[in-house]
Amino acid sequence: MSRGATVCRLNPSKMGRDMHSSKEVRLARTPAGPPTKADFELVEVDCPGPADGEALVESLLLSVDPFMRLRMHESDYVGRNFGGGGVGRVAVSRHPDFAEGALVRHFAGFRERFVSDGRALTLLDVAPDLPLEVQISALGGIGMCAYGGLLGIAGLRDGEQVFVSAAAGAVGSLAAQIAKIKGCRVVGSTGSDAKTDWLRELGLDAVINYKREDIVAAVAAATPDGIDVYFENVGGRHLDAALLRMNPDGRIPVCGMISAYNDNGSPVTGLHQLVAKRLVIKGFQVNEFPHLQDAFRHDMRDWIRSGAIRTRETVFQGIEQVPDALISIFNGNSIGKTMVRVAD
Amino acid sequence: MSRGATVCRLNPSKMGRDMHSSKEVRLARTPAGPPTKADFELVEVDCPGPADGEALVESLLLSVDPFMRLRMHESDYVGRNFGGGGVGRVAVSRHPDFAEGALVRHFAGFRERFVSDGRALTLLDVAPDLPLEVQISALGGIGMCAYGGLLGIAGLRDGEQVFVSAAAGAVGSLAAQIAKIKGCRVVGSTGSDAKTDWLRELGLDAVINYKREDIVAAVAAATPDGIDVYFENVGGRHLDAALLRMNPDGRIPVCGMISAYNDNGSPVTGLHQLVAKRLVIKGFQVNEFPHLQDAFRHDMRDWIRSGAIRTRETVFQGIEQVPDALISIFNGNSIGKTMVRVAD
Repeated sequence: MSRGATVCRLNPSKMGRDMHSSKEVRLARTPAGPPTKADFELVEVDCPGPADGEALVESLLLSVDPFMRLRMHESDYVGRNFGGGGVGRVAVSRHPDFAEGALVRHFAGFRERFVSDGRALTLLDVAPDLPLEVQISALGGIGMCAYGGLLGIAGLRDGEQVFVSAAAGAVGSLAAQIAKIKGCRVVGSTGSDAKTDWLRELGLDAVINYKREDIVAAVAAATPDGIDVYFENVGGRHLDAALLRMNPDGRIPVCGMISAYNDNGSPVTGLHQLVAKRLVIKGFQVNEFPHLQDAFRHDMRDWIRSGAIRTRETVFQGIEQVPDALISIFNGNSIGKTMVRVAD
Repeated sequence: MSRGATVCRLNPSKMGRDMHSSKEVRLARTPAGPPTKADFELVEVDCPGPADGEALVESLLLSVDPFMRLRMHESDYVGRNFGGGGVGRVAVSRHPDFAEGALVRHFAGFRERFVSDGRALTLLDVAPDLPLEVQISALGGIGMCAYGGLLGIAGLRDGEQVFVSAAAGAVGSLAAQIAKIKGCRVVGSTGSDAKTDWLRELGLDAVINYKREDIVAAVAAATPDGIDVYFENVGGRHLDAALLRMNPDGRIPVCGMISAYNDNGSPVTGLHQLVAKRLVIKGFQVNEFPHLQDAFRHDMRDWIRSGAIRTRETVFQGIEQVPDALISIFNGNSIGKTMVRVAD
């Protein structure tokens, strides 16, 4: 099997009039540490036309997310199509619910095109004044994670003290802004001056560059009234820094722990704070909030339109750049939501 | 100031007819690591007779608990009366609610006798068929912690897979037995063969001696169907061992983390499991369960009377032995509930 970003064409002889080809990105091997290009392979496969009750979807934007690193640990994924959600357009339809030209949300992974029986497709309720990118950022799963984590899991109350780690990341930047909208004092951490600048523009009350400052000392200095809610994206020393500053009955919704995805990361030593302060730490996933879905879509659209929520994307061009996009999440080069544009 | 178990008599000249003396144990200094005798001092102080609206209480049993080690970190406690709850008898009363001879629960610390205005006293609703020791073990705060942690915080359901660390300890032994009563499969960990034997007598399904086995491998071997509820008393590698075996939507009520009380203990490296499995870790305290108080007292009395709950105490004799009792909790020599008998 070829490795890296080379293309491996499978079964070219079967290509016919109703047969399309589709490039897809597969996990070639389990990365040792941060992912590198050699951990992925680009494969060209046959994609037949849709049968009755099916639709052929062309990918437009593909979402690239930190959680994908966790799947890379699982040998089940090696050699298989990889990835997660995206937005596409129905190119050929033999399905009554999906007209040709319709925009859909999917979870089909890093593929140029694919055939679906419709069960994993959702028609996009597009707001024509909003760019398509927003559908996989603020209005997509990461928006729901920020909203659900803060308002559902943590039960955020107006005016509380909030700390968000990886605050310039896809979910973190939304969580920080939602907390500001709710009248909270918000401290964010990030790892570069460019991201620090952006977070200041977003109106955060204090911003920490953890690569320039000791995170424990910096969080202590930035949270004179403690922390009621720590929106956790990082783990390790960030969590220890937060634990030391948590107020009684504080809540720590855990959206991710990116510091531990490539290896086990920094260990955590301060968990005994949990008892004395009656803290709760809860891991959650995007699918836990069906009860908040309507409120989320309503609120988030309003906030984007009013400018209360500002989004930023790091967009890679072409499915060949999926490995670069994945790598950029872990080397800190991405700001905001990372995605790959496959077609316009 | 004298150190160790020597007695320091304060103001002996003021002792009069209505004046009693009382020995009390104070924290002499912040222990460096596990507590030693030199970290405490025994002081004799004047204890005046009660004024109108007050009662003089003689201590009978004093509770000795792991949480006390956390207070030893706080410089506020150095040089002050130390300790927690106990059971006493009203010796002289000028308070309408507390007749002489009445048994009371208190939180007055390691003192032979003291005067109270009644606000921190609770009349013991004694079950005459139960020994007084039970009032500060199964029917006291530690019973409430086991009951509230499992049924309140963790929402234990019949038949779930349960792991209890420090299962031969005061709270752990009750939590393990409550889980058995609820039809759960229960695995316990402890640190000596004597404790292992006792836990087997109590009917646990598997018992781990973490000093003889690697805790991570042992927990994995003992939990073929994973863990739904981990009742956490230890922290460190015990928590990592549990995290690896937690089932989706598992709950970890944190009653204590004794491995981290003397120093920071073993760090925890597996917290990223929280997200993929949607786990919750919640620290709690005994005072969080007013809504469960009636059910707790009713259930626990029934269980003790029926033999479904068996209690065991490690009893030290005399207030002079308070330091030895505290030390025994951290060197692993205590089994079940540790207490000091001050008077009969």
